[in-house]
Order: sequence, then structure tokens, then C-alpha cells
Amino acid sequence: MSCVADGPTVAVLGATGYAGAIAAGLVYRHPWFRLSHVTARAEAGQRLDDVHPRTRVPLELVPYTIDAVADADTALVAYPHGAAAPVVAELRGRGLRVVDLSADFRLTDRGIYEDWYGAHGAPELFGAAVYGLPELTRAGLPDADLVANPGCYPTAALLALAPLARAGILGDVVIDAKSGVSGAGRSPTATTHYISADENLTPYKVDRHRHTPEIEQELAVLGAGVTVTFVPHLVPLAQGELVSSYVTPARDVEPAELMDLFDEAYAREPWIELRSGPPGVLDVRDTNYCRLSVHHDPRTGRVMVFSAIDNLWKGAASQAVQNLNAMYGRDESEGLR
Amino acid sequence: MSCVADGPTVAVLGATGYAGAIAAGLVYRHPWFRLSHVTARAEAGQRLDDVHPRTRVPLELVPYTIDAVADADTALVAYPHGAAAPVVAELRGRGLRVVDLSADFRLTDRGIYEDWYGAHGAPELFGAAVYGLPELTRAGLPDADLVANPGCYPTAALLALAPLARAGILGDVVIDAKSGVSGAGRSPTATTHYISADENLTPYKVDRHRHTPEIEQELAVLGAGVTVTFVPHLVPLAQGELVSSYVTPARDVEPAELMDLFDEAYAREPWIELRSGPPGVLDVRDTNYCRLSVHHDPRTGRVMVFSAIDNLWKGAASQAVQNLNAMYGRDESEGLR
Amino acid sequence: MSCVADGPTVAVLGATGYAGAIAAGLVYRHPWFRLSHVTARAEAGQRLDDVHPRTRVPLELVPYTIDAVADADTALVAYPHGAAAPVVAELRGRGLRVVDLSADFRLTDRGIYEDWYGAHGAPELFGAAVYGLPELTRAGLPDADLVANPGCYPTAALLALAPLARAGILGDVVIDAKSGVSGAGRSPTATTHYISADENLTPYKVDRHRHTPEIEQELAVLGAGVTVTFVPHLVPLAQGELVSSYVTPARDVEPAELMDLFDEAYAREPWIELRSGPPGVLDVRDTNYCRLSVHHDPRTGRVMVFSAIDNLWKGAASQAVQNLNAMYGRDESEGLR
Amino acid sequence: MSCVADGPTVAVLGATGYAGAIAAGLVYRHPWFRLSHVTARAEAGQRLDDVHPRTRVPLELVPYTIDAVADADTALVAYPHGAAAPVVAELRGRGLRVVDLSADFRLTDRGIYEDWYGAHGAPELFGAAVYGLPELTRAGLPDADLVANPGCYPTAALLALAPLARAGILGDVVIDAKSGVSGAGRSPTATTHYISADENLTPYKVDRHRHTPEIEQELAVLGAGVTVTFVPHLVPLAQGELVSSYVTPARDVEPAELMDLFDEAYAREPWIELRSGPPGVLDVRDTNYCRLSVHHDPRTGRVMVFSAIDNLWKGAASQAVQNLNAMYGRDESEGLR
Repeated sequence: MSCVADGPTVAVLGATGYAGAIAAGLVYRHPWFRLSHVTARAEAGQRLDDVHPRTRVPLELVPYTIDAVADADTALVAYPHGAAAPVVAELRGRGLRVVDLSADFRLTDRGIYEDWYGAHGAPELFGAAVYGLPELTRAGLPDADLVANPGCYPTAALLALAPLARAGILGDVVIDAKSGVSGAGRSPTATTHYISADENLTPYKVDRHRHTPEIEQELAVLGAGVTVTFVPHLVPLAQGELVSSYVTPARDVEPAELMDLFDEAYAREPWIELRSGPPGVLDVRDTNYCRLSVHHDPRTGRVMVFSAIDNLWKGAASQAVQNLNAMYGRDESEGLR
Repeated sequence: MSCVADGPTVAVLGATGYAGAIAAGLVYRHPWFRLSHVTARAEAGQRLDDVHPRTRVPLELVPYTIDAVADADTALVAYPHGAAAPVVAELRGRGLRVVDLSADFRLTDRGIYEDWYGAHGAPELFGAAVYGLPELTRAGLPDADLVANPGCYPTAALLALAPLARAGILGDVVIDAKSGVSGAGRSPTATTHYISADENLTPYKVDRHRHTPEIEQELAVLGAGVTVTFVPHLVPLAQGELVSSYVTPARDVEPAELMDLFDEAYAREPWIELRSGPPGVLDVRDTNYCRLSVHHDPRTGRVMVFSAIDNLWKGAASQAVQNLNAMYGRDESEGLR
Repeated sequence: MSCVADGPTVAVLGATGYAGAIAAGLVYRHPWFRLSHVTARAEAGQRLDDVHPRTRVPLELVPYTIDAVADADTALVAYPHGAAAPVVAELRGRGLRVVDLSADFRLTDRGIYEDWYGAHGAPELFGAAVYGLPELTRAGLPDADLVANPGCYPTAALLALAPLARAGILGDVVIDAKSGVSGAGRSPTATTHYISADENLTPYKVDRHRHTPEIEQELAVLGAGVTVTFVPHLVPLAQGELVSSYVTPARDVEPAELMDLFDEAYAREPWIELRSGPPGVLDVRDTNYCRLSVHHDPRTGRVMVFSAIDNLWKGAASQAVQNLNAMYGRDESEGLR
Repeated sequence: MSCVADGPTVAVLGATGYAGAIAAGLVYRHPWFRLSHVTARAEAGQRLDDVHPRTRVPLELVPYTIDAVADADTALVAYPHGAAAPVVAELRGRGLRVVDLSADFRLTDRGIYEDWYGAHGAPELFGAAVYGLPELTRAGLPDADLVANPGCYPTAALLALAPLARAGILGDVVIDAKSGVSGAGRSPTATTHYISADENLTPYKVDRHRHTPEIEQELAVLGAGVTVTFVPHLVPLAQGELVSSYVTPARDVEPAELMDLFDEAYAREPWIELRSGPPGVLDVRDTNYCRLSVHHDPRTGRVMVFSAIDNLWKGAASQAVQNLNAMYGRDESEGLR
């Protein structure tokens, strides 16, 4: 490439997790940002492309300490829930702008947070983040120093439901979500063993999944104070997520009105592909796209929205880079094609 | 095996389709029934185990004519919808008892049939069949000469919803169903190409799937006249089907009452596995089992039932043999373990 | 089933491993043997069908102690290499006949054993076992009190090469083997993680795999003292193994002679399916069959044999039951159809 | 991107096949070449991104006629074998430079071509092409007006064997190759049906695969006139190819000499990743890389080389673009990262 990147430096923390590795690769090849550090504990000393050949990032992994990364301008934190908060606090204390991929700063009600996650690891920062789903919340991003990157399920669900929520026609909602196995993380477990997942298909966390309050919070922000039923399912594929939303509208809607609502919301969004036929997760694999379709069932009056994303990209890593672009006033799509 | 089968002879028509081949294998190894004929058009002259090695049925495939199979006592017809009806009429005309795996005789309202399927191929027999979902309809099976084997989705959905329908608490229903690729049949198409299905996941026939009226008809028989939303999804696995049913109950129900309803319905059923945790389709692969769990969401009051079957077994072939057993007064489980 | 099993009792040790679970299921449904104990450490107290629903074995898992299982007549030991030997010694000390699925008793040369596996855990029993590949070694099985069940790769490779070895035409041999992920065992590891194995394909243990000396030992028994090149590959499927053997014959052979050699060896074997076209692993999934084809390349004079088995069945569990049948003078196929 | 492409225009013929679609996407996003036409017969009138969403190429597909594409500077022809030759002749007749992805111009011996493929469709051009495997044949590419893009198996096999062939140590060769299902093309067939390929693994075209003479021809060009044994296998994954080459060296070689040969050949090649451990196909998925490892077996003296590529990328589409770059004197890697 003729143009040398000369933008801010970015440290990716937790770069050997699935989302962290993809984020590191995207920043490494970004035309403006510069990848300055990649951290990992267990694999420190190895190069990232030894651990994750597909990233083709030849940087050496270092163990995280605040001093080791404090000279970066910005950090993407790809840590598990709970582990992120104290590190984010350290980073903010040294002036770095942060995109946090965990759930630690997504919720805004302290009681709800503690009910679903337990004690918070950096209470002084609770509530300080901007929720970073650019298609819905981009106004706040340029001034944000801490962005909470949404969960994968909330990303797909909120993009599906936002036009209905804003229009005041979101009544009862059932969200049946299906995700590939990478959503369960890189730790080898009985669930992620090939023999458990291959040729299998099962609901999980049926009674209580932590993405539920996140979806409800953001729907409320959009104007719809609803209690949703949300059930995720594990599907035998590596990456990809399909969210099927079944909405009993608060009032009758005509198909044409529905189409108008979605067209208006998304026709100018570069990363939303609104189509008449239902999406497949393969259509968006390894991309930042959310592809969706909206349908009206004349027999029941129900509205159905199907939205597909790559859980590791738009559901995590590439959305983090999209947020980074927005925070620095760049074209949101830079480095994502 | 020490005991020689000496029961009625059975012809399997359409024995090279996925369900037909499994049915032929089950009958071939059945301790009482005797497999007398296997028919196929394109592969006539080959042995069934050349076309489908896993069946290990060494019989030669013959093209169907009524004379070729008329000496059998019974026939399992595994033909596509529409193609079955005229052949079933021929078989009945020669006195054979029939289990029909197609949709041709499942519906009982002529208008509804024609609306969803078009003209019927044997109108004189319309309405003459017993719907063969033994756990719900076994009373009529011993006297039946024509049994309509249920569709795969209706099997899993009806087993999930029957206890609620009978108790009068089935209000609004959303059925989100997921099926492996064998459900699309053996013809090679763009949809069933490995490259289309692998690592993919997509809703299909969102606006209108023919199993919808079948589900509604049988729910009505059970006492619940509801209009359901039913959406199937294609999942990258060979066999298996998971049906997630989201029910807004017609009145408040307590978890304990729910459990009692399901226990009462299924505790003595050998092929229903009621469990507290959600089922995986791999748990029932290559078996006649339906495995299910029922859940109550205290946040919304909603009832959720998850039911898993093998779409080619309990959803087709092994259920046909279960019906055959019931028609002849045998133990319903004979030959199915 | 009308006939009640009244044969010897069998304890399955290590019943929650993949092979152990299948073996337990086969013995549980065997018409003559009776499954008396299933052991496991971590999952003790649970029922086997809770851990492995597909077995449908409702017995409670108990932790192994010699006193807990000593009242059984026979034991199938499905332990990891090294862990089996001392337990086998205890079992033999109490008079139980044993089929050992580990590698601990397969090799007959102590130096070779120690070179590839280290110190042996029951040296007093070293060399006491009969190698249990019934199609090749059945003469010794009826009198055996300790049978060493072959490795999965040796099973498929030896069945492919035996007719050539016996005929003295086994020259140079390259064995390129491919196995599904269950071959790596049930422990969750980076290798068996769905995301590592799915859509991947890689050679492993290229420089040294422990099945090499086992293959060479048994080929020598058959009359061919050769050094083989053996390279296994990991393939994205759950169960199944294909072994491609490339043989430079010690002398020219004609296709007709080849076919005769294989026909003579296997025409009467119920579990060997010799076919003209190459086998697929799906043809033998969940069965005790080995399916194979032999080819002659006129351009190079090379002989190629392709053999497919299910690594968990003929490569482990069902072969163990076949051995058990042979040890007790039963039909080798009893309980395996 | 700030820089507007202003290079030659490229027509991609057969743009709805798997390789054609990827090639069209690469040219469409290439910083210098401009994609001017995409052709297809059955899907003419649709946009390429309707047929293949992942390409994100919004151009309309047109039916091929020579007049429809003659204003392009260059053409990539992604037609089936046999169909390409007459079209290539038309394109050359109008002065377009051509990269042909079929086998029609790869062989240089007319008798061998006819023996394996039958009559040639443009005999006047037979022998006129440069074989386009840039790492081995780049000298001839800048002046070439017709480049024969190699087959996928020959690409991986030749890159594995070239250093040995040039050094005169290529003795006897067995090539055991494994490919994902996309190698079988986009037409739905019994072989490419999900139910046939999933959880399966099988050798195919054991007795005669057309890539054999192509491999032997190019090995001869490199100095090794050998007859190879080549057997492909079908593996349940979408894209990816692993070639395992087993070489009996013509003379003894030491591991250090081997490493030197490969280092010398590939250390400066941007698209060859030489590693000490064996490659996995997932490491190179969706890339132009060939990743390989070379091993020496001290027990047999045999040399083993494992090479992994993406059959649709380095094995077809991206290699075609690499050739295009070389033909026009551009950096070979342009547009491929």
C-alpha cells in the first residue's frame, strides 16, 4: 500500500482470544491506525501469527501490565467479563481511550448489573461508557473516551428491532437466536469439544442469558420499554449468528409501512444489507455486515425480522474497529473492507 | 437371530429416498414383519445396499407397478407429496394396508388441502386416513387401513404442545424450528449443495410452510383452535430437528402445574424422554425418541418447550414402523431399539 | 426381547470415554452377556445415560476399585495407555478375563514397547496377551484370558495389508491415514476444540506415531518384515477412519491375482466388505464393518488398498465385543448387528 | 481508498462458478485493474452479488458473446475444461490477453492431452500458453498473452516437490491429496449433496485423475522425469486442500540439506509459508498462501512434504490474479492481501 499509516497507536489486550485476534489483524492492516502492542498471558513470547496464523500479524505477544502498554494512544480490551473493568480503569487512568469488548460497561443500571453479573470491578467508571452500536448510537462516539462494544446477540437483535422500537410498534417480543461455536470462547470445554458440537443443535441458558438485560436496556433507550423472551441456541458452525425476532406489534401495521420503516433506518447504512429474502449467516461471514429481512404474517399479524451477523466481526472485533473509526472522526468503514 | 420373522409382508415404495431407505432397513431387521419388496425408479436393478450401503438391505430394487407389489400385505409409501395419493389408491384397491409418509392424507379439510397443496390425487380417499402420531392418536391405529404418517415438524411441535393444548392453556404460539439438510430430500439442488449448506444457517419458507395447517389441524383436534406462527430454519447437520415453541399461556400457569401436565402425558411413553435440561438433536440421532424439556419464564410468564427428534426417524421412517406395529397390534417398540 | 440374557457378566471400566460408552451400550443390549458394572471417576454417581444419552444405559457409574468389580466374570478396560496395565493386573489377579482397549499389551517386544511408551505398568503380564484382530488372529482367542484390542489405525491398516503380507508381495509401504476427531479422545483440548477442527485438515505426529511399531509387529507375524511409513491426518468429522495404503510390491502382480488374494482372505468374513469401488467412512459409521477396495496402477505397478472403519467401533468398542464373543465361543457377530 | 484504479480492464468469464466469483471479487477490489464485465449464462440479468453475496460485486451478469466483452483489455476465463478453448481463441483473436483457469492449455504434449481429455477445442493455440505458477515459472509471464492457470492439485504438489526435482533427488513419489467439496464445482450432484459429503471421506478417481499428467509434465520441466502415483480424496470441508507427498529420494539426503533446499527456494517468496510443523488447511483459507513443511523419516530415509492451499484461491482464483499482476509487470501481490 502506498500510504503509510500515521494515525494513533492501538494496543489490543487479550489478542489471542478469537475476537482479540481478529481485532488485532484489522488494526494491523488499517490504513491509518497503527497496531503497537498485542498482549496475552499464556502465550506471551510467541508471535501472534504463530498462535493464530490467519491473522498474519508478526508481532510478539507480551504480558499485560499498564506500563507495558501505556504509551499507546488507544486500547481495545478483549477480556472476559469481570476481568476487563479493572484493566480499563488502569488504562483510563493513564489517559488511553478505550473500546471495551466485554460486558463490563454496557449496562447503565447498577442494580441490574449486579443482579446479572455480581460486583463491578471498577465502580468509579460505571456508567461512564458510550454504548457503541454505531448505526444506533453514533452521535456520542466522537467524544467518547470509553466505548462499550455491544454483545453479539444484542447487536443483531437491536438492529432488527430498532426501527420498530422507534416507531412505537414493538409489542411482545420473542427472540430466538442461533450462534456458531466460537461464541463460546477459545477455552476448550465439554461444550466446545468437536464431538459435542458437531451434528448437534441445542438451546442453552434457556432460563437466563446475560444479553437479555442489555437488549432490554437499549430497546428502552429507543423508546420501547418491553420485557423480551430471549433464547440462544448453539449451532454446528464456527462463526455466524442468526437472530429470529417474532414481534406482536403494539398496533396493526401494513407491510408497506414496515418496509418504509426499515428502508428509512438503513438505506444509507453501509454495513446494513436490507433484503427481501431471509439472510444466511454465510452471506456475512468474515465481514462487518448485518444482513436482514423483515416480514409480515397476514395470518397472525405478526412481524418477523431475521438478522445475520458474524458474531466475531460485527458482533465483536470489526464493530470495535468501526467504533474506533467513529471515535477518531474517521470514515466508519475505514480498514473494514 | 434365533427367531425367524413370520409376520405380514411389507413393501417399501420409494426405498431410495432418505426416509424410505431407513424404513426399509428397519423392516428388514424387524423381528416379525418381513420386507418383501423395495421399489425405486431410477435405480431399479441395483441392490438397495449398493445405493445406500448403511441400510445393509441386499434386496434388488424394482420399479413400482401395482402388480409388482400387490402380493404384499402392507405398504410403506415414501413418495413426494402429490405422487403418493394415486399409488395409495391403487394399493388400497388391492387390499393392502398402507402407511403413507407423504402429506397427501394428513389434512382433513379439503379446502385447506387445496389451498396449500393444490388438487388432490385420490379424492375418493380424502379424509379416510388416521393421523399416525401414536403418542397422541394411537386409539385409531389398530383398525386403520390407511395411516397418514405425520410431517417431521408437526411431530416435534405437536408432542411439545399437546399437553398444553389439552389443558386449555395454549394461547399465542410461536414455533421456531430448525432442521438438518436431509429434510430437503435427496435430489441435488442449489440448497442441498454442500457449499451452500455448510457453515450456513438460514430461515426458509418464512411466509408459508405447508406444515403450518397440519399443526393447526391437530392442535384443534386436541382442543386448541389457534393460529400459529411457524418458521423453519436450515441448519448445517445431516439429520436432526429441534423445535422451539414459545407459548403465551391462555391463563397463568405455575411451573409445578406445567411439570405435572408433561409428566402425566409422557411418563409412560417409551419414546418420549422428558428432561429438565434442554435437548440436543444428537441425543436422538438415529432413534425413534423425542426428547423434550418444558420451561417457565417468570419474567414474562411465557412457557417454552424444546423438542428434539431425528427428522428421518421419529419424523418419518421409524414413526412409520411404530405405526405399523400399532396397526397390527404389536408392541409399538418392536424392531425399533 | 423375548430371550433373557443369561451369559457371563461384564464390567466396562472407563465407561465415559467415547469407546467405553459405546462398548457399554453394546454389552447392555447383547443377547447373552450381561452388563454388570460401569465405572468412571469424575462422573461417578451419575447414570451413564445422563453423561452419554445415546448409550441409553441407565446404570449408575461407580468409581473403579478392584473390589467393586471383582464379582464380574469379564472386564472391558477402556483406559488411556499406561493407566490400563496395573488395573488389568488387578483384574487378572482376581480371575477376570480381560479385553484391554489400550496399547499396554499389544506389543510383544519389551524394548520396542519401552522405546515408544516408556516403562510398562505390569511387567509380569507383558507378552501374556493375545492380539485381538479376529479376522487375522481368531485362532488364539477362545483360550485367551487377556486380549489386547488393536489400535484403530492398525485395525484398518492390517486388514488392508494382510493378504499382501501373507502372499509375500509386500514391498515398500506408505500408509496415509485419516481419522475423525473422536480419535483424539474426550478430554477438551486445543486440538479437539470445534474451532480448531472444523473446516480444517492437518497431518499430525508426522515424525513418530505409536501405531507404527504395532503395525510393523503384526505385519511381521503375517510374514512381512517391513519398515512402514505411517502418517495420520485429522479430518473434520466425528467418527470414521480411512487408511490409504500405497504398496510397491516385492514382485509384479496382476490385477486378477490381487483380487483373488483379497477374495480368498475376506469373502467369508461377515465384517469385511470387499468392493470394487473405494469405500467412504460414512458407509461404515456406527458399525463393526471394515469396507475396503484394492487397486492396481498399471502406470507404476503400485498396489493401492483403501480401508474404512469407524474408529470407535471396529477400531475400538465393537471389535472388543467381537473379541469377547470369540473368547466365549459365541458367534463373533452376536450383539453387533 | 484514495487511489482510483486506472489500470487495464478485465472481463471475468464464468463469474458465477466458485473460482470465477472469487476472481471477480479480487479484480473488483484490485487497486489497479478494473473489472469491466462479468459473464454467466443461466444467471444473466442478475447481479453477481445476488448470486454470490460474499463477492459484494454489484455488477450485472451478461451472457458471453465475443462482442460483449471485446472492449476489455484482458480476460480471466473460468470455464469448464473443453468449454474454455474455443472462447479463448475468440478472445485472443480480438487481441485480449487471457488467463485461462481451465486445463485446456496446460499440457504441452498433444498426444497426452488427447489421451486424457479428448480432442482439443482450439488446436491452433495448443502449446501457446505459459504455465502460470509464478513461484516456478514467473520468467515467462511478463511477455505472455495466454497464461494457463494451474490445477489446484498440481499447484500444491509442484510447490512441494519442486526443490527436490531441481536438486535431482526426486525418486519414487506417492501423492495423497485431500480436497474440500468446492473442488467438485457448483453443479449440484449426488457427490456434492450435503448428505453425501458431510461426515464422509472417500478416495475418488483412484485409477485416473487428469491432474496426474499435468504434475508429471511440470516435474519434467524442473528436471525430474518421474511417473507419480496421485490419489485425491474428498473431505468434508468447503474450501482447502492438503497434499501429502511421500518421496523415496534418488539418493540419501540429510535433514539439513533438505531444509536448505526449501529455504533457498522459498525464503523470499511472499506467498509461501515454510514452517517446521505440518500445515492445516484452515491456516490458508481465503488466501493466496501455500503453507508447507518438509520432513525426513530416519527409519525409512523417506522425505515427506505437506503442502496446504485454498483450492479456490491459490489453487485457482487468486493465483489467476497473481498471474495477471505478473503479466502486467505489477507487484505479484497487488490486490491479494
